[in-house]
Amino acid sequence: MILFAPKPFIPMISSFFRIVILSFCLWGGDIALISAQNLRSPNKVMELKFQLDTIGKPGFDFFAEGLPIVKGASLGFALAKDKDFSSGFKVDSIRQGEYKGSWNTVWGEQRQILDHHHLMMVHLSQNSQGTVRRLDIEFRLFNDGLGFRYIFPRGGNNGHFTVLEERTRLPLQQDYEAYWMPGDFDSNEYPYTRSRLSRIQALKVGEDTGLDYRYLVHDSMVQTPMLLISDQGYYMAIHEAALRHYPAMNLTVDRQQFILNTSLVPDALGNKAYLEDGDKTPWRVLLYARKAADLLTNRVILNLNEPSVLENADYIRPGKFIGVWWEMHVGKSQWQYWDRKGSGNPGDWQPVTNHGAHTANVKRHIDFAAKHGFPYVLVEGWNKGWENWYGIWKERIFSFTKPYPDFDLDDIHKHAKSKNVKLIMHHETSGAVTDYERQLDSSLALMQRYPYAGIKGGYVGRIIPRGEHHDGQWMVDHYERLAFKLSREGLTVDLHEPVRPTGLHRTYPNWWTNEAARGNEFNAWSKGNPPEHETILPFTRLLGGPMDYTPGIFQIKMNAYGKEKKEQVHTTLAKQLALYVTMYSPLQMAADLIENYEKMPEPFQFIKDVPTDWDTTLVLGAEPGDFIYMARKGRDSEDWFVGAITDEQERIFEFEPSFLLPNRKYNMFLYRDGDQAHWESDPMNYKIIKKTIRSNELIRVRLAPGGGCAIHFAPAGQKRNR
Amino acid sequence: MILFAPKPFIPMISSFFRIVILSFCLWGGDIALISAQNLRSPNKVMELKFQLDTIGKPGFDFFAEGLPIVKGASLGFALAKDKDFSSGFKVDSIRQGEYKGSWNTVWGEQRQILDHHHLMMVHLSQNSQGTVRRLDIEFRLFNDGLGFRYIFPRGGNNGHFTVLEERTRLPLQQDYEAYWMPGDFDSNEYPYTRSRLSRIQALKVGEDTGLDYRYLVHDSMVQTPMLLISDQGYYMAIHEAALRHYPAMNLTVDRQQFILNTSLVPDALGNKAYLEDGDKTPWRVLLYARKAADLLTNRVILNLNEPSVLENADYIRPGKFIGVWWEMHVGKSQWQYWDRKGSGNPGDWQPVTNHGAHTANVKRHIDFAAKHGFPYVLVEGWNKGWENWYGIWKERIFSFTKPYPDFDLDDIHKHAKSKNVKLIMHHETSGAVTDYERQLDSSLALMQRYPYAGIKGGYVGRIIPRGEHHDGQWMVDHYERLAFKLSREGLTVDLHEPVRPTGLHRTYPNWWTNEAARGNEFNAWSKGNPPEHETILPFTRLLGGPMDYTPGIFQIKMNAYGKEKKEQVHTTLAKQLALYVTMYSPLQMAADLIENYEKMPEPFQFIKDVPTDWDTTLVLGAEPGDFIYMARKGRDSEDWFVGAITDEQERIFEFEPSFLLPNRKYNMFLYRDGDQAHWESDPMNYKIIKKTIRSNELIRVRLAPGGGCAIHFAPAGQKRNR
Repeated sequence: MILFAPKPFIPMISSFFRIVILSFCLWGGDIALISAQNLRSPNKVMELKFQLDTIGKPGFDFFAEGLPIVKGASLGFALAKDKDFSSGFKVDSIRQGEYKGSWNTVWGEQRQILDHHHLMMVHLSQNSQGTVRRLDIEFRLFNDGLGFRYIFPRGGNNGHFTVLEERTRLPLQQDYEAYWMPGDFDSNEYPYTRSRLSRIQALKVGEDTGLDYRYLVHDSMVQTPMLLISDQGYYMAIHEAALRHYPAMNLTVDRQQFILNTSLVPDALGNKAYLEDGDKTPWRVLLYARKAADLLTNRVILNLNEPSVLENADYIRPGKFIGVWWEMHVGKSQWQYWDRKGSGNPGDWQPVTNHGAHTANVKRHIDFAAKHGFPYVLVEGWNKGWENWYGIWKERIFSFTKPYPDFDLDDIHKHAKSKNVKLIMHHETSGAVTDYERQLDSSLALMQRYPYAGIKGGYVGRIIPRGEHHDGQWMVDHYERLAFKLSREGLTVDLHEPVRPTGLHRTYPNWWTNEAARGNEFNAWSKGNPPEHETILPFTRLLGGPMDYTPGIFQIKMNAYGKEKKEQVHTTLAKQLALYVTMYSPLQMAADLIENYEKMPEPFQFIKDVPTDWDTTLVLGAEPGDFIYMARKGRDSEDWFVGAITDEQERIFEFEPSFLLPNRKYNMFLYRDGDQAHWESDPMNYKIIKKTIRSNELIRVRLAPGGGCAIHFAPAGQKRNR
Repeated sequence: MILFAPKPFIPMISSFFRIVILSFCLWGGDIALISAQNLRSPNKVMELKFQLDTIGKPGFDFFAEGLPIVKGASLGFALAKDKDFSSGFKVDSIRQGEYKGSWNTVWGEQRQILDHHHLMMVHLSQNSQGTVRRLDIEFRLFNDGLGFRYIFPRGGNNGHFTVLEERTRLPLQQDYEAYWMPGDFDSNEYPYTRSRLSRIQALKVGEDTGLDYRYLVHDSMVQTPMLLISDQGYYMAIHEAALRHYPAMNLTVDRQQFILNTSLVPDALGNKAYLEDGDKTPWRVLLYARKAADLLTNRVILNLNEPSVLENADYIRPGKFIGVWWEMHVGKSQWQYWDRKGSGNPGDWQPVTNHGAHTANVKRHIDFAAKHGFPYVLVEGWNKGWENWYGIWKERIFSFTKPYPDFDLDDIHKHAKSKNVKLIMHHETSGAVTDYERQLDSSLALMQRYPYAGIKGGYVGRIIPRGEHHDGQWMVDHYERLAFKLSREGLTVDLHEPVRPTGLHRTYPNWWTNEAARGNEFNAWSKGNPPEHETILPFTRLLGGPMDYTPGIFQIKMNAYGKEKKEQVHTTLAKQLALYVTMYSPLQMAADLIENYEKMPEPFQFIKDVPTDWDTTLVLGAEPGDFIYMARKGRDSEDWFVGAITDEQERIFEFEPSFLLPNRKYNMFLYRDGDQAHWESDPMNYKIIKKTIRSNELIRVRLAPGGGCAIHFAPAGQKRNR
């Protein structure tokens, strides 16, 4: 327990830490006593008042800057079989303390993170027919957020038990404006909707979103992260941290009274979680910010996660990758090798004419990666099974060890090795996770043989075990087990269609990125993502962790691949560049076809230059749904990068680069929208400006509608390989 | 398809086979036509009349010796989503043929098996809004049974689909006496109940059976095999054959009209099966016999299974084993190594004082096995996880690679190798099959390293994936996948608590035995098995395949292990010997403590002598629930063995050993109940008689109540190692 036996966080060096026991209180009263105790944030701006009501129901009030945020929250569980674990409690003791320390990230948006909070541990017990069952509730109050979780202590007399529902109930005090997504049990690939809480209509979302498999349940159920904007002007985000061995949390909103009720994702039987004494729930988190921009550097979720469990993190090298991938999305090539038209009998199948993952094409990508300094190449469609995989809910579809006949593993890896490039193995499970897990050991052995750098995993479709959901406990366990197992093999993990992240990349730095939201790919074959989409994601999805959004599409209009194609990316080209700064991931894709980069080497230079690991991050300005302006300094580098993006509105982005060292000249490489650029009508119109600049010079850039700007500042006079 | 391209059955040699096309009929009529076609068994004793009624519903009548057995059977399915696939059909064509051939068993009750049947393939189609969906129904009519199955032909336009229910409905024509067991989705370890069909009360069974986890659904639902005894004196057994990629079949009995309705075991969502075009259902089987004894040599179920898929069967060596096993059942030792009393914190655990699977004890068993000619030793409790495993429905409990600290893998296997003994590895999954499958590759690697002979698997408790059942499609797939995977590793499979067998040991001879019924172990710690139990099993459970019943208990009364123990085995000692003949398994346990065998070497000699692989099997007399008298000749041997068992009634067993070679003398070793023996009061009272005998001499033996007799005939004058 952190309070009494603080351990230095390994392998990071704590620059300072401090524990103060603020109070200790033994509560002798019976359950008729109304008990209360207050906890304040270190800066005293936030205040939490824990209380036990007359029927022994635990709860709290929560205030920020004197304003009531939550009043009359109640806490607890319904356990099988019909066991109420939300009232009838008494308080055994309450302890308070302060923690102040810092830790170094393995990679990330900043090198060092401060963790300063006050904490309160409430020890409760419930006497039911002579059996005393125990429940602890832990609160951590930061200057910019609150986290609390439930702990079922060892020896707490619950044994092994089933959670029917978590009864966390948070009555908010106003009808917030919210950015929300439906409380789907399987998908987080919706666009965001903005509305008052009272106007949430979750079931209306999704008809034309390009999502084939959706699992919606309730019209007022939303998922987290959810962003709330108050009438007073402050911002809140609601999410969870350290989601482990527990289902994801949705929120069922009382639209009249603005009460948020926790609704856990069920398993096949409708149960929520299978736990035992010693288990903890994830943290329920409220982030608070006076201005929106501050949410983007809020580190409460990371601080609530456990330190890294990796024995060795040397193999985790942030970087960029290209892939045999977008060419399938735009229809240039196919994942599958066999054409199964005709009899349907595999013996009669013929190879297709445009299989993407063939040896020559992969080697071409390796050559390109080596030439332009990309350490990784992803290849999709390398393995058997793509002929009939989509939407059929079949257990055995893919092999994770058998390549197609035109994918020469030895030849490809020999070539990759000679070029100092590593492959990322693609593991599309089609949701058949039982079968994937059966094959995992042999697939890992194959990855070690060459070796691969890691995996990109996919979970398209309904889950097997049938009845389980992407966001239920069983799958949450799967993702973590996968990350842990691969960490021991020196392999990295990038998951598509997993549960939304909750800061576990602190604990498993090799599980470094996820899709888990609506990525750039939707622009290739659906109605796409609205121009504001990328200005919302960092306020919502990315609060939980990095996103493999796959930016860098230069060929914005899909009609380049066929006249019949009407789709297009809903940004300008310059905004695609800016996303490398505003949309954080330690593993970042240059997603377009390599021939498009070859055609446009000048803007491509920014992608080559921008790092994926940062020393410092500054938000120069941000408003969700409108714009994000960010500046970041590369780790172990003096270079700074700026990304500015806007929604469908044209904007002027104006700033002084005061973060640059004073009295020093920098070469500025500025990639902006062309004068007539517009995301819809003229998206590929860009302009590159190179000049020398100092920290006190004003920079003023027009962002086109749906546009953006990317800037690279490099100290002048340094020899650079450009 | 067997009809037009008969393949010789490999690797067995077919001594003869013959195909005759009896008829071919193209049906041009529309669905309003009432269509019918008859099929007769080769000996014309059985007759099947297929028909399509006025609404296009397929069905049949079935007669044996002119008596109506089934009248107005109907066939078909309910498919998702609300798709009726049981009417609206028309007949495209019907083909009939005859097959006659024989095949050799890898091991079994007899060396060669004749397969002679007439067959009828009915091709149906259903036109639904312009889509023509196809269904084939295949009938095979033997002289002693009927099998039929559904085939979803390739290109049949059902694609991938979900079976909501199979609508097979068999109206019987009388209120049979039946031996039945409740239609539990997870357990087949009930004692049998005898009643008329009209008196089935499935929910009343089980309260005092010693079964902790039961999943009963319906008061008139029973499982198969079910034995039926007619008023006219003939016998029928209802079961299925070749249960693969499909759930097990229960039967819901209409107790007024004696109609059997197929009720498939559901998955977590209530669906029954996930299939695609090209899949076949198991065979639905009716076995028919004029006298009960003939059912015990009925090979219809084996004939309906596919030939062996093994590339190599050399490693499959029938034989007997001893084990570190019964000592845990009687409380002499424990499976677990750690005593988890106290804090509940693993760091505080102490070793127990009587862990069974310690190195010295295992080596003692290896020495015993070597000395007495047992090729295999089973060790339970060798692996980590036994401290808290039972009934907690937790996913990760057991390790299948990590031995307890006192189980020295290297030392034990070095010793075993020097003694030419192999170990059987125990894999208790506690029902957590997902976790077992994750660990399987690494466990197989461990087994190869030493090597082990095979596994004894166990599935005690509720299944994970949660909501799945032992007898559902997902688990049926699991068992087969396991058998196949281990076959490729040269490992044998003996499963406890799996779905009931359906003859798949023909296809996977390495999956050579199963428990899958109420075994001898229940006598150690429950109300036990009634004395008639072993006279019913060969008429029911064993119709599907061999059983690992674990006979050979000499210390009948458990009070030898503690005064407080009231349990006892419900047979005499001599009957325990007879079970080696009457209860077939190619892998047979000598289940008692080896020290008990050391104390009683004379009766133990029979266990040492009796083989587990036979050339010929004869039934000298049998009545279910009363007695079974069997004679078998060892494979590649001139020795004969006789087993005779009775229920709670005393009987005189009298026969001439006319199966012996005439004009030849045999040494007879006869193990019978002592004169005062009685299963309850004096069960260990036995007598051994040795004499020389010829084939025409009458042998007359008293079987005590709950008793039996075992006889070994060895040609006289041969040098034997006794």
